[in-house]
Amino acid sequence: MTAPIDLRSDTVTRPTPGMRRAMAEAEVGDDVYGEDPAVRALEERVADLFGHEAALFVPSGTMGNQIGMRLVCEPGQEVLCDADAHVVTYEMGAAAAVFGISTRTVVSDGGLLDADALLAQVRPRDDWHLTATAAVAVENTHNRGGGRVQPVEQLQRLWDASREAGFAVHLDGARIWNAAAASGLDLATYGRLADTASVCFSKGLGTPVGSVLVASAERIAAGRLWRKRLGGGMRQVGVLAAACRYALDHHLPRLAEDHEHARLLAKRLGVDPASVQTNMVVLDDVPAPVVAEAAKARGVLVSQVSPRRIRLVTHLDVDRAGVDRAADVLADLLDRC
Amino acid sequence: MTAPIDLRSDTVTRPTPGMRRAMAEAEVGDDVYGEDPAVRALEERVADLFGHEAALFVPSGTMGNQIGMRLVCEPGQEVLCDADAHVVTYEMGAAAAVFGISTRTVVSDGGLLDADALLAQVRPRDDWHLTATAAVAVENTHNRGGGRVQPVEQLQRLWDASREAGFAVHLDGARIWNAAAASGLDLATYGRLADTASVCFSKGLGTPVGSVLVASAERIAAGRLWRKRLGGGMRQVGVLAAACRYALDHHLPRLAEDHEHARLLAKRLGVDPASVQTNMVVLDDVPAPVVAEAAKARGVLVSQVSPRRIRLVTHLDVDRAGVDRAADVLADLLDRC
Amino acid sequence: MTAPIDLRSDTVTRPTPGMRRAMAEAEVGDDVYGEDPAVRALEERVADLFGHEAALFVPSGTMGNQIGMRLVCEPGQEVLCDADAHVVTYEMGAAAAVFGISTRTVVSDGGLLDADALLAQVRPRDDWHLTATAAVAVENTHNRGGGRVQPVEQLQRLWDASREAGFAVHLDGARIWNAAAASGLDLATYGRLADTASVCFSKGLGTPVGSVLVASAERIAAGRLWRKRLGGGMRQVGVLAAACRYALDHHLPRLAEDHEHARLLAKRLGVDPASVQTNMVVLDDVPAPVVAEAAKARGVLVSQVSPRRIRLVTHLDVDRAGVDRAADVLADLLDRC
Amino acid sequence: MTAPIDLRSDTVTRPTPGMRRAMAEAEVGDDVYGEDPAVRALEERVADLFGHEAALFVPSGTMGNQIGMRLVCEPGQEVLCDADAHVVTYEMGAAAAVFGISTRTVVSDGGLLDADALLAQVRPRDDWHLTATAAVAVENTHNRGGGRVQPVEQLQRLWDASREAGFAVHLDGARIWNAAAASGLDLATYGRLADTASVCFSKGLGTPVGSVLVASAERIAAGRLWRKRLGGGMRQVGVLAAACRYALDHHLPRLAEDHEHARLLAKRLGVDPASVQTNMVVLDDVPAPVVAEAAKARGVLVSQVSPRRIRLVTHLDVDRAGVDRAADVLADLLDRC
Repeated sequence: MTAPIDLRSDTVTRPTPGMRRAMAEAEVGDDVYGEDPAVRALEERVADLFGHEAALFVPSGTMGNQIGMRLVCEPGQEVLCDADAHVVTYEMGAAAAVFGISTRTVVSDGGLLDADALLAQVRPRDDWHLTATAAVAVENTHNRGGGRVQPVEQLQRLWDASREAGFAVHLDGARIWNAAAASGLDLATYGRLADTASVCFSKGLGTPVGSVLVASAERIAAGRLWRKRLGGGMRQVGVLAAACRYALDHHLPRLAEDHEHARLLAKRLGVDPASVQTNMVVLDDVPAPVVAEAAKARGVLVSQVSPRRIRLVTHLDVDRAGVDRAADVLADLLDRC
Repeated sequence: MTAPIDLRSDTVTRPTPGMRRAMAEAEVGDDVYGEDPAVRALEERVADLFGHEAALFVPSGTMGNQIGMRLVCEPGQEVLCDADAHVVTYEMGAAAAVFGISTRTVVSDGGLLDADALLAQVRPRDDWHLTATAAVAVENTHNRGGGRVQPVEQLQRLWDASREAGFAVHLDGARIWNAAAASGLDLATYGRLADTASVCFSKGLGTPVGSVLVASAERIAAGRLWRKRLGGGMRQVGVLAAACRYALDHHLPRLAEDHEHARLLAKRLGVDPASVQTNMVVLDDVPAPVVAEAAKARGVLVSQVSPRRIRLVTHLDVDRAGVDRAADVLADLLDRC
Repeated sequence: MTAPIDLRSDTVTRPTPGMRRAMAEAEVGDDVYGEDPAVRALEERVADLFGHEAALFVPSGTMGNQIGMRLVCEPGQEVLCDADAHVVTYEMGAAAAVFGISTRTVVSDGGLLDADALLAQVRPRDDWHLTATAAVAVENTHNRGGGRVQPVEQLQRLWDASREAGFAVHLDGARIWNAAAASGLDLATYGRLADTASVCFSKGLGTPVGSVLVASAERIAAGRLWRKRLGGGMRQVGVLAAACRYALDHHLPRLAEDHEHARLLAKRLGVDPASVQTNMVVLDDVPAPVVAEAAKARGVLVSQVSPRRIRLVTHLDVDRAGVDRAADVLADLLDRC
Repeated sequence: MTAPIDLRSDTVTRPTPGMRRAMAEAEVGDDVYGEDPAVRALEERVADLFGHEAALFVPSGTMGNQIGMRLVCEPGQEVLCDADAHVVTYEMGAAAAVFGISTRTVVSDGGLLDADALLAQVRPRDDWHLTATAAVAVENTHNRGGGRVQPVEQLQRLWDASREAGFAVHLDGARIWNAAAASGLDLATYGRLADTASVCFSKGLGTPVGSVLVASAERIAAGRLWRKRLGGGMRQVGVLAAACRYALDHHLPRLAEDHEHARLLAKRLGVDPASVQTNMVVLDDVPAPVVAEAAKARGVLVSQVSPRRIRLVTHLDVDRAGVDRAADVLADLLDRC
């Protein structure tokens, strides 16, 4: 039996032989002591890419987001974001549970950043009885929004307002690589519109483990202590950083291919191509459990976002042939719905 | 110089001579040991009024709300509510900071409860990666909504859905007395549509200090421990409970008078009378700092909710003559704007 | 039947007629708005008494201690103290649960402050992997130590070391009044050896409710926000502050009488008088449940600290005749053990 | 220049070629989805080794300890342990900061477990005003105790008492492998005397990253959610688990060699051999900064535990020749002190 075509998420990618070789050959040290050369090099490289002073390797995007928000928000203060943001949806209430940070949300239109809607909810920091808004968190691309790329004008508008009003901006950039590939903007453009940003290597970039948080040097120093407190301090973590370096060299340039595959899927499945901005395709108004089960039986794995919504995600473990095969299977199943 | 007419809030009421006498004569004991007869009697009476098994006296509405939510929500889980709710606006991020509870919000139309909008955001409790929605919090009357009374049909709809979906309902009933006075429904009707409810005596009811949390006996027992942990365990607190008992006997029946006064103010100031459901009047599109300052100079205190919004609250320390005088002053000032 | 003689704790005192009158006549305002004249006057007076810049009225000693520690300790840092201190024994784990503050302890000899034993455990604040010791908490008099007065030389030694090492000192001064009465030192002497101090009015001073936290003006401003977050913000709280003012005028000067009563009890019950430094008498190696039950049946209430230890506390609701009667009953019961 | 002989810690070990090969060849999947075969196999194997139902791979010993304690302790409850335990010394106050768990400590004699000293501090869980002792944490071997092995009789005594009194036992078994190698007891003997145990692979066992928490199946299921909340959920983590499997096969059997090396060092440096139970040697009463600096200049890295204490740790990256060379250098330096 052939392996299934796994379109559930881009997190399922397995390290390639080249990446495994890079890991096996990594020069390492004890990163808790700050002595792992591969990690230090990666942190410097990622900080540079996003135009920030410093960076911190963390074991997951969740840890990157949570520490990132903590660095700009004290216990008792709040972070504003979209009600479907990953930070409030899939991170198990960590901001509150771990850090004592409140989250307050605005329901968005399919994840689309609406700076004005958020700004209308900002509350001042110097008031004696209002919960102070310390930061706004933005997700780009937006996971539950089907991989949507946030308009840079909205990001700029939010950033400008934040400088005036005195709140910070955190970027959940788990898939910022896809945003950049789709928009043609460079990573630094996104980086300079955020005080803290978490970017992930184990999604479209295909590494087994790892995210990196970028911020000012002072914030990253504080973040290093929080990482240790959360249990994210690891030792010869260069074996993981080597995979990230490999991914920047070899996988970052090929993301457009995933986007092309997603558009192909959309076309074959009758989905509005305008809704497919990066590597995700959302099928709405389908009997999700039925379709998912039937597709699985035919070797195609998909993700059920809700009882009537299915999500398909393209990534480096699905090539053009796989996309075609998945399209055949799913088109057939949708025809029968 | 005469005392100013203070319309900033109904929290500013001073205890009346009769209430002070009741306090001075209170039979008391050590409530940390559970031996204060006045507190015990009050707790029983309030539990009965709302049709719950048990009750707990707490020093503030904030503590009542926060413990109430904690009793139905574990750290890492979330409470859904309106983005302008008191629990997320004026309680200093306590749910997260103190209890590790997330809050997620829906922007409402002037505080009006929209059960469907909230229900659309509920996330299941048994999922392995979604932040679980453990409770929905409802505020009635709604402070930032200008004293709005929540439609009982919406409350019922939310309650019915909660029983099916397995989340709890917390009622922030700081001004539930006003809701009942306005709707003609009794307190138990509101009480039976909530798992936990916090009701306050130091607003329209005019006592110096005190709120009461109602819930099941088991929850209240747990709440008693949390109250102690938060520093809310007090000793001969019967002196405060006696004021609450007095307020139930003497001030609860007169709330309709405050509502009549608010309608009078609205009429005099050209505010849509339909927007005045209880004891608050909201003046929109006015230069709030200018009006507030000028009114103060003429002996009328008002509250600035935002740079363009003023709030007036009637209460037992403002009689009909005071209302007339305030209306004269404010009408004159608004004319000049 | 006559009322029992209640020696369980000095927290059980009921307000006297004079104190009730003072409460009934209190001039009040809305303290959440900072407008209660009786509270402001009390805060200023207590700050002065202890030689600090500012003060904050709180509903309980637990809240005073916890906020006091929070003002000198960040989440993730630790407070060192005696393993039997009230802050770790009777405050329900609040430091950790509410504020994320660690406590680390040293087992003491009957509550006696041993500065060197604590100093040996202090860990530096600037280390990258040690939990930083931000503060040491001292309890004076020491509750579980049987009302022991801490030697001022030890307090001075700790204070001097703290200035050098850069940690803060928090004083749990719930019964600092008794310490001062016993040592002949004034309150400011104790006050100047602490960065933050919580002092309580509902123990030997006999008010129904209330503690006051003293510290620098900047810390008290931050403490005011934490008090609100914990639900300790109350409205016309001058009714309680008036009782505290009355207690300072009328009950503070009489504490020596309670100490004399405790010595009388000790003498009658064969307890080493050297162990009775203030208003507590500890009976060791007695069958506590049996004695407590039998004493209760004969109108004397005592506290069981452990299965073999009983504690007696004198206070203003027990006069000389009551002491004699209690001594008769207990001497008789101990004879039979 | 030759690489220095690094005796600072056994955490500095670098993966061997064999281990790197195992990692490069690991069969992996998405562990957040529970689909990584290498991780699942490792978790089962470790659970079996310690006689527990289930296990959870975590990125660090700190995360293993902290989640382990959380699984047996609610916010507001306390964990008792030695004042020098890793969980209170080197984990940045995580128990309190992250989980709201209090720690209370007993100062030990060089890390030696004294069950009676701990038991004397246990407080009951059902009391209404005492902070409840939910668990005792034991560290074996004891890091700051110089690698001391805890006497199994003491472990048994603590365990028996815990069953009676109703508290849990957490084992910080970061170096339990060394304890077993030294005592000749098997891992399951230690495992059955704990409710939760965290064991580490990146110390003496020499893997780059990873610890495993063992407990009941129910607790591990809850732990999995907490791991995700802390940001410890990783994807194709089989690359790390493969290193752990390799370590169990190839490095676990050789730990006695490290112990032999430590004894050699002790002998050469005049340290009481009785104090060297596993892979650590403590040099007391030496000018630590001076010695450390001079040793470093001569190619030997040591750890400064305090200004007068140096720690040497043997591990698989230091062979017999390295031990001899380090002994030469250090003996010479100590002679000159």
